[in-house]
Amino acid sequence: MTPSITASKDTPTRGYSATKEQLQTRLSRIEGQVRGIQRMVEDDRYCIDVITQISAVQAALDKVALGLIDDHARHCIIGGKEDEQSDRTTELMGAVGRLMRRS
Amino acid sequence: MTPSITASKDTPTRGYSATKEQLQTRLSRIEGQVRGIQRMVEDDRYCIDVITQISAVQAALDKVALGLIDDHARHCIIGGKEDEQSDRTTELMGAVGRLMRRS
Amino acid sequence: MTPSITASKDTPTRGYSATKEQLQTRLSRIEGQVRGIQRMVEDDRYCIDVITQISAVQAALDKVALGLIDDHARHCIIGGKEDEQSDRTTELMGAVGRLMRRS
Amino acid sequence: MTPSITASKDTPTRGYSATKEQLQTRLSRIEGQVRGIQRMVEDDRYCIDVITQISAVQAALDKVALGLIDDHARHCIIGGKEDEQSDRTTELMGAVGRLMRRS
Repeated sequence: MTPSITASKDTPTRGYSATKEQLQTRLSRIEGQVRGIQRMVEDDRYCIDVITQISAVQAALDKVALGLIDDHARHCIIGGKEDEQSDRTTELMGAVGRLMRRS
Repeated sequence: MTPSITASKDTPTRGYSATKEQLQTRLSRIEGQVRGIQRMVEDDRYCIDVITQISAVQAALDKVALGLIDDHARHCIIGGKEDEQSDRTTELMGAVGRLMRRS
Repeated sequence: MTPSITASKDTPTRGYSATKEQLQTRLSRIEGQVRGIQRMVEDDRYCIDVITQISAVQAALDKVALGLIDDHARHCIIGGKEDEQSDRTTELMGAVGRLMRRS
Repeated sequence: MTPSITASKDTPTRGYSATKEQLQTRLSRIEGQVRGIQRMVEDDRYCIDVITQISAVQAALDKVALGLIDDHARHCIIGGKEDEQSDRTTELMGAVGRLMRRS
């Protein structure tokens, strides 16, 4: 028994269509945060404050990545064709491992 | 406010002066990577590929943060006045903790 | 091919039955590594070497966690009942988030 | 080999002497947590609960590692001889990097 109900005839190429605009907004904000860090360096701001901002950007990127993983699990794995679910889970695990090891 | 008040003539006002240009270059590249991720989302690229790019940005940010920590240790702690070294070490540990927990 | 072959009529309470022994072996080894760290502290070993061993234990724990996530995805989500797949994905995402934030 | 050769009468041979007992207690508790995870696997507990416990052990190990880094910075770097401070900072950065990448 597969959860094929939610899958259209053509498997979607990505799982996050519902939140594409939201994703773009978040990524725009992250881009702005990175520019803010550049200005901090330009202005010779205290290194600890710069590092703190870097942590904030990483937390924001983690949130985006977790959202993508969630959508991949729901749409590409659960909603995927039976013969593709295993490969897509393998891909997902690779992505989670790279995120955890930050590599 | 930079810690320059406490710096002697020979101590730089912040740790990363020697590599300010290099830092700017790295941050520019990271900004470009974030824009690249926005384009991937715009183009409906496969979610796993987007996550992989996010990991690459995280790794690049880690590298920048490690460089800043290194400079902080060398210039602001080792090169700092004796009565400030302890506080700056406490600040450093806070920054390392936030980086490890990505918060 | 779904992982249903290994599932009993009742959905299994955990997904890693196939590798239970392997998991136990890895966890035993990790327990031994933690005892080794205690001995290093007992013997006043250089702090950097102790930290390096802690990183090794964390890498080993990450590997165990990734294996459990993989099994959860394959058995509890893909192989799960349709009405449970969503909740189990939500649980999985919570677990991945805690692992990434180390909390 | 501890860095005791370079320590003055007042500098401890390793950074964490003051809290050696506390460190041992924490590591004992972590060892117990790892045994607890082995029992969870033995008892076929739900994989998500096992992963959650692994995250708790990772957080506890992070805390021990941060304490060791703090002591290294205070005793081995700040309290070290001038010609060794640079090498010890390099060692510290290597350790922080391995912790962040969990490798």
